[in-house]
Amino acid sequence: MNSEHMILGVALTNSFGAHPAAWRLPHVNPEAYTDIDVTVEHARTAERGGLQFVFIADRLFLHGDLAVSNPLFNMDPIVTLSAVAQATERIGLAGTASTSFFEPYLLARQLKTLDVISNGRVGWNAVPSFEPDAFANFGKEPPAREKKYERLHEVMQVVQALWGSWGYEAGKPDQQGRYADPAHVKPVNLYGTQVGTRGPLPVPPSEQGQPVIIMPASSGYGLQAAVMYADIIIAMPSSIEEGRAQRQAIRQAAAQAGRNPEDIKYLAFAGFTTGDTERDALDTRLALDAHTDIRGPLARLSAYLGLQQQLTRPDEPLTTAQLTAVQAHPQDARSIRAVELAHAGWSPRDILAHAVFDPYPSVVGTAGQVADHLQEWFKAGAADGFMLNFDDFSTEIGNFVEQVIPVLRERGIFHNTYEGKTLRDHVGVPPQYGVNPRITTGPQ
Amino acid sequence: MNSEHMILGVALTNSFGAHPAAWRLPHVNPEAYTDIDVTVEHARTAERGGLQFVFIADRLFLHGDLAVSNPLFNMDPIVTLSAVAQATERIGLAGTASTSFFEPYLLARQLKTLDVISNGRVGWNAVPSFEPDAFANFGKEPPAREKKYERLHEVMQVVQALWGSWGYEAGKPDQQGRYADPAHVKPVNLYGTQVGTRGPLPVPPSEQGQPVIIMPASSGYGLQAAVMYADIIIAMPSSIEEGRAQRQAIRQAAAQAGRNPEDIKYLAFAGFTTGDTERDALDTRLALDAHTDIRGPLARLSAYLGLQQQLTRPDEPLTTAQLTAVQAHPQDARSIRAVELAHAGWSPRDILAHAVFDPYPSVVGTAGQVADHLQEWFKAGAADGFMLNFDDFSTEIGNFVEQVIPVLRERGIFHNTYEGKTLRDHVGVPPQYGVNPRITTGPQ
Repeated sequence: MNSEHMILGVALTNSFGAHPAAWRLPHVNPEAYTDIDVTVEHARTAERGGLQFVFIADRLFLHGDLAVSNPLFNMDPIVTLSAVAQATERIGLAGTASTSFFEPYLLARQLKTLDVISNGRVGWNAVPSFEPDAFANFGKEPPAREKKYERLHEVMQVVQALWGSWGYEAGKPDQQGRYADPAHVKPVNLYGTQVGTRGPLPVPPSEQGQPVIIMPASSGYGLQAAVMYADIIIAMPSSIEEGRAQRQAIRQAAAQAGRNPEDIKYLAFAGFTTGDTERDALDTRLALDAHTDIRGPLARLSAYLGLQQQLTRPDEPLTTAQLTAVQAHPQDARSIRAVELAHAGWSPRDILAHAVFDPYPSVVGTAGQVADHLQEWFKAGAADGFMLNFDDFSTEIGNFVEQVIPVLRERGIFHNTYEGKTLRDHVGVPPQYGVNPRITTGPQ
Repeated sequence: MNSEHMILGVALTNSFGAHPAAWRLPHVNPEAYTDIDVTVEHARTAERGGLQFVFIADRLFLHGDLAVSNPLFNMDPIVTLSAVAQATERIGLAGTASTSFFEPYLLARQLKTLDVISNGRVGWNAVPSFEPDAFANFGKEPPAREKKYERLHEVMQVVQALWGSWGYEAGKPDQQGRYADPAHVKPVNLYGTQVGTRGPLPVPPSEQGQPVIIMPASSGYGLQAAVMYADIIIAMPSSIEEGRAQRQAIRQAAAQAGRNPEDIKYLAFAGFTTGDTERDALDTRLALDAHTDIRGPLARLSAYLGLQQQLTRPDEPLTTAQLTAVQAHPQDARSIRAVELAHAGWSPRDILAHAVFDPYPSVVGTAGQVADHLQEWFKAGAADGFMLNFDDFSTEIGNFVEQVIPVLRERGIFHNTYEGKTLRDHVGVPPQYGVNPRITTGPQ
């Protein structure tokens, strides 16, 4: 890994893509949610492009209205990643597992086993759950925020202590001597208020030692935890300025916590629908949006454009009078973007098709426009890389690998091939085994 | 599945085999514990032989003395089985998961996801944990026996209720209409004293609906639970008589619990070391036992033979005086077997090499002797099938598939190929989706 190169993770998640109508497209297998072969094929395509890792987000409840969309997350990230591990060779395998419900011994065991059998390719996105719907599936009410983070700290430290409990010094099996040196496979005896363990965990080091830690960008308790534990932080900045500011804030907090800021990689969400022309891409997006009632989005767009009156002609560019009246909210990147598109002559329907209201910056355009977006953010220091989200995974991953990756390589901002074998190699974060020794406090 | 045919499961567990010295054999890969390719190859060989399922047992702590042996269980059964699922097509995939620690929502989700992605090949061996070493890894003390079984009942019913919460009636995705009918994906709202959930679980039916349930043979609370939930019961009878008696007791208890006794399959543990001749097989076993101090086993053998004096010449057949003095404990199958072998002229070392002290009946002999053992038990009604354990998995699974399976097929007691696609098909147990409706009591 070279800091001239961006890191690219790609959200596999539900195998359809980020748009809730992707499952309806005629070329899409509508059973992709339950068909592991589809997920595997997507991961293999990403691997062919040299992407550093696939990523499976999670929610611990049914998320999505089945009348109109597939369940929006994955059936089970760990089970899915293990199958994907078996069908891939190099690409990293990252997934979310909540710190709120898993017993740390079971979680440590599953993640490190997956890391061992994948030859060191695993990343764990460690997040506390907050949704009442998730807690209900465990017969519980959500705890107070500080209790959630107390548990997160305990789980992180107990899991990592278990990971380190089979020491490298235990050695490799010697058929003429010992299987391992029992003196270096030791209990951890780490007990917090909410969780604890004796150990050891009977899982030897993986090729990268133990999984890479991923955490979401957050503030307060969440930022404090992320700079203690995370190798990768995934964020949703809405603009280059916001990305730069958040990345800098994290780097500063990391330095204050005694870590090298270079050791934490900041990835920004980015979404894509591509086409041979911008018009093609917009039409693809419009096909996805066809099942959405446009009245709600139109009303929202009117407000974002600062118009007093509703937009009523979705397929006509704004009138001169309307264009004179539009006014962006200066702090809101979505509003600024919508005003730009209106002035460029796009109709309201096409402005919406530019994905202006997606929860993260999205490009609906050509492969060149996608590459420009990534390059601009990366070169501006707004991200060390990206978490890619495709509206329609089945089409876009191939387009990205065939059309965008070559451009990024030509521009010298993406690696030509995997530099090493492990996820740690791919993303350029340092070795760690067990709890980071810079963290001196055990669970409280 | 045809009741003229026996069911064969095979214990993959730690990938070396049942003998703790198997990892030392020169032809064995000493890193098989962490190398998924070895496990996959073993499963594929078993699949080539038409075995109904592979089985991965579990303990939630480091089991085995690393100075002399590998860890005796698997790193993680669910993660391992998911990788094996991806690399196999037909064979069933069964594994142990304790009811004592897993949150039922997470467990239900992982097992059903695995069942879906393997196209309906999963079996869950549901066991309560009892070992203080396991509880210590969760920062707990073992509860009283009735509390363990209270939790088991609650977990079984909550897990199965979650499995059934996405109804078949929800239908398949219709790209012109609904993804699924939300009216048939419903909360379960099942709460016990120890665990509970709201649901639903966002996982549609697998090809077999939901995983097959396996439980260990037990008595009291354990028997009561097994006849309520199990499709397969795995037992360790030490003789045909014990197997017949236990199988009959289970069938009677099942009938009393309102189930069809034919719907519960009783499998007996059986162990094997094979060779071209019985002498070859004994020599293979002796090589495995070479690292074991013989003095303890010799003393134990003296006692089992009813001798007042210690055996001191391990490589000589017993003297006429010794043979006159030997006397079997009439209730102890191991003692009876040891006396038979002494009278047949085997030396003490060879008697021990016949695996007389293995925890379950084992054959050390030719493929024909193995087939005879299985046939005799099966024809006597002592088992509906077997849980096979190989001393050295790497050699024995191939021998079994190449040499024993053809004999069983010639004798008409093993199927020629998989009759169906799912584990339920392979073992001949009826469909079930959600909680068995004959169980009328929810968690107490």
